[in-house]
Amino acid sequence: MDQLTSRATDYAKWYNDLVLKAGLAEHSAVRGCMVIKPYGFSIWERMRDDLDRRFKETGHENAYFPLFIPKSFFSKEADHVDGFAKECAVVTHYRLRNAADGKGVEVDPDAKLEEELIVRPTSETIIWNTYRNWITSYRDLPLLINQWANVVRWEMRTRLFLRTAEFLWQEGHTAHATREEAVAETQQMLEVYADFVEEILAIPVVKGVKTESERFAGALDTYCIEALMQDGKALQAGTSHFLGQNFAKAFDVKFATTEGKQEYVWATSWGVSTRLMGALIMAHSDDNGLVLPPRLAPTQVVLVPIYRKPEEQEAVVAACHRLAEEIKALGIRVKVDDDDKRKPGWKFSEYEFRGVPLRIAIGPRDLAAGQVELARRDTLSKSQEAMEGLAERLADLLEEIQKNLYAKALDFREKHTTEVNSWEEFKQVLHQKGGFLSAHWDGTAETEEKIKQETKATIRCIPLQAVEEKGTCVFSGKPSKQRVLFAIAY
Amino acid sequence: MDQLTSRATDYAKWYNDLVLKAGLAEHSAVRGCMVIKPYGFSIWERMRDDLDRRFKETGHENAYFPLFIPKSFFSKEADHVDGFAKECAVVTHYRLRNAADGKGVEVDPDAKLEEELIVRPTSETIIWNTYRNWITSYRDLPLLINQWANVVRWEMRTRLFLRTAEFLWQEGHTAHATREEAVAETQQMLEVYADFVEEILAIPVVKGVKTESERFAGALDTYCIEALMQDGKALQAGTSHFLGQNFAKAFDVKFATTEGKQEYVWATSWGVSTRLMGALIMAHSDDNGLVLPPRLAPTQVVLVPIYRKPEEQEAVVAACHRLAEEIKALGIRVKVDDDDKRKPGWKFSEYEFRGVPLRIAIGPRDLAAGQVELARRDTLSKSQEAMEGLAERLADLLEEIQKNLYAKALDFREKHTTEVNSWEEFKQVLHQKGGFLSAHWDGTAETEEKIKQETKATIRCIPLQAVEEKGTCVFSGKPSKQRVLFAIAY
Repeated sequence: MDQLTSRATDYAKWYNDLVLKAGLAEHSAVRGCMVIKPYGFSIWERMRDDLDRRFKETGHENAYFPLFIPKSFFSKEADHVDGFAKECAVVTHYRLRNAADGKGVEVDPDAKLEEELIVRPTSETIIWNTYRNWITSYRDLPLLINQWANVVRWEMRTRLFLRTAEFLWQEGHTAHATREEAVAETQQMLEVYADFVEEILAIPVVKGVKTESERFAGALDTYCIEALMQDGKALQAGTSHFLGQNFAKAFDVKFATTEGKQEYVWATSWGVSTRLMGALIMAHSDDNGLVLPPRLAPTQVVLVPIYRKPEEQEAVVAACHRLAEEIKALGIRVKVDDDDKRKPGWKFSEYEFRGVPLRIAIGPRDLAAGQVELARRDTLSKSQEAMEGLAERLADLLEEIQKNLYAKALDFREKHTTEVNSWEEFKQVLHQKGGFLSAHWDGTAETEEKIKQETKATIRCIPLQAVEEKGTCVFSGKPSKQRVLFAIAY
Repeated sequence: MDQLTSRATDYAKWYNDLVLKAGLAEHSAVRGCMVIKPYGFSIWERMRDDLDRRFKETGHENAYFPLFIPKSFFSKEADHVDGFAKECAVVTHYRLRNAADGKGVEVDPDAKLEEELIVRPTSETIIWNTYRNWITSYRDLPLLINQWANVVRWEMRTRLFLRTAEFLWQEGHTAHATREEAVAETQQMLEVYADFVEEILAIPVVKGVKTESERFAGALDTYCIEALMQDGKALQAGTSHFLGQNFAKAFDVKFATTEGKQEYVWATSWGVSTRLMGALIMAHSDDNGLVLPPRLAPTQVVLVPIYRKPEEQEAVVAACHRLAEEIKALGIRVKVDDDDKRKPGWKFSEYEFRGVPLRIAIGPRDLAAGQVELARRDTLSKSQEAMEGLAERLADLLEEIQKNLYAKALDFREKHTTEVNSWEEFKQVLHQKGGFLSAHWDGTAETEEKIKQETKATIRCIPLQAVEEKGTCVFSGKPSKQRVLFAIAY
């Protein structure tokens, strides 16, 4: 395998090369659309299944809504149309015909749609149009629905997983009888996301709310989790929106209260996407390739038999499978790679590159000595380990690696979160050190925009756990009640 | 709940009403596209998860390919373009703009795509275009990949689940070094489908191959499983295609053999879709609503507490939960419906309509007597059962129901499969009794077409288990070696 570009040399190239070489994803023949390769998809599947379990445990059900949205739907919610109906894929025709020159096919001009259809960039409009028929009384509430789907937002500059025209995501859309219940749902889902990203992806996140200018188009409040990548840039890892009654009013969704009054329904929506794959990669991986937290790794332990002669092969392969059975019995995802077509050296480099947390090699001499060679991906350390009782030690070690990755990422974030108190300091820290800048802001969109223009830094969030603290805005010098988090973001 | 139209009165209306009233799916605001409602989706999820497990057990991995396919790709495989590139959704633009009259948005004429994109009706072309870069040597083979995705085929006449413009499906696309291996894969996946449909959906299927005119566009052979619905019509429940080297040649996918020669790769593809929901509904359900086989039912047992006074409520609800814990401990999917907003009568009718296999009611008198009322959905019978040891008996009963549904459907199919030996007999049986007609056919597409024109019956398949038997074609009188299965199909 070719050497990977180092992070220090070119971080963007390191990321792209890693995604390609680890077999996670690649660009497709369709501009801006990616192919998620089997290994990448198996990691996404594990994210999806874990999230899906958490959604169901909090009372949500899955459903499926149409891929297409009539163009006119976007105009019904005033803010939403500006945010979403611009860069999108538009279906105008429904038939092809054989070309007159006999070469290939062409669009049949007679098959023009009366109203164009938009490939969903997000589904609030089509879903709230549907909810109108589903909700008539308080008995129908709350309505707690999630959808796993593909969405399309036409992007000019794309990056694998981080920004692609088509991506996979889940979008929760809930309906409630009261404002309080909807706000509680919005906050609950933020917690679900935060727990998932911290417990499974081993990435610490800051929970916060967006400023008005960074809010979802059509929301009254957007809650978010923000993570820090190894290059000091922030990445928004998930959002949960309190939509108020905006979509209920736009699509006329009312319910009869227990007292028989007609009221508009309160809404939330929340989503995470294949972007999380980008966060995962950039939070933990190194110049040797992908590093996966054990709870997420499709394969947690790989066993590679080492042999030269056929009589050796049989014994070491058998030993690998015996050990694998013991490991599997503990619920660990283990794989024996006894593929005869590949050499051990190729396999070592492959599994290191793919971030398998633990690699075990067994050769004839190991077998005789009752031991194995154990390689740990996060620290790249190797040790000789007795076969006796190994499976149990591996289980402990996987938990240790999971904790270690989280601790390392948290330590990095803490070291790269800086309180800045002047505009000079702001610019100096931002450009020399990067990371999160905790600074006072005067609360105006005008200052926010000027800071963005001058430095590319945006307000990632107003942290939920921030303490009230009097100060003056780093940019305008006007009074401020609380620090907010700035960063340059993906 | 309104009465359901009976099957005898209007089978098509019965089906549509059932799908709507059981909360499975409904038509959306987008012509031809359906909304799969939470209950319908939970059944589809169980199908998907079981199939996915079977795919993985047979060595397949999931991946994800783009939603869009460049128009020119369809022209590369000659048969494929005729079969698939006609009725489809065509993306021609990538941007909307504010309309000049200030009302809503319109397509931006400056944002026209150079080459139109087709929303995938099936993914052979984009996938084989991708495989060209993935396959270079025999070491890369076999490549065993599956995709769960939405696809779009513009249909003029749509029916929920059975024929919709957008539907959900899985499509397996595999690449092999030899013809034999690809044929074996095609046959293996047919067996996987047949086992799944028979074991989980409790629907007996006939395994067979399609005639040339019914083959998938671009395939050398299409294997299929065919099921019989209660109205005597056949439904194709899954297909598995041996594609030969057609797509490898169209997209130039070659591999180096162990001897270093360059050869074209052999291909298969196979798929089942949300159409299986239609098969499920039509195979088992009755005039009282949905009937679900226990292995597929999201809820296998529902407990409904019956009470009038608050002091009764506490005791019976607690008893329901205690019993539910015992039932759950056996791995049975059980639900207590203690929702105070609905009456028991409403719940009884709701769960009957939704096909929950077993319903238990517990009132104060039952509690005192240590018994429950048990209602069985498949037979609609009720009995008093002792609480003692009930959970174990329910487990047995669920298995019995699963077998009973399969046996009933098999019995129906056997009674509606008729050997016919003359053209008069063919027409008479077809129109009076329906079902499968086992008849001799001369093997020509011409005869097949004439029979279809005259009777609407098509050859559903040439059964794999048919015995060679000399005879004469029911239509042409020409010699035939084997009977084939005719039916009017969905």
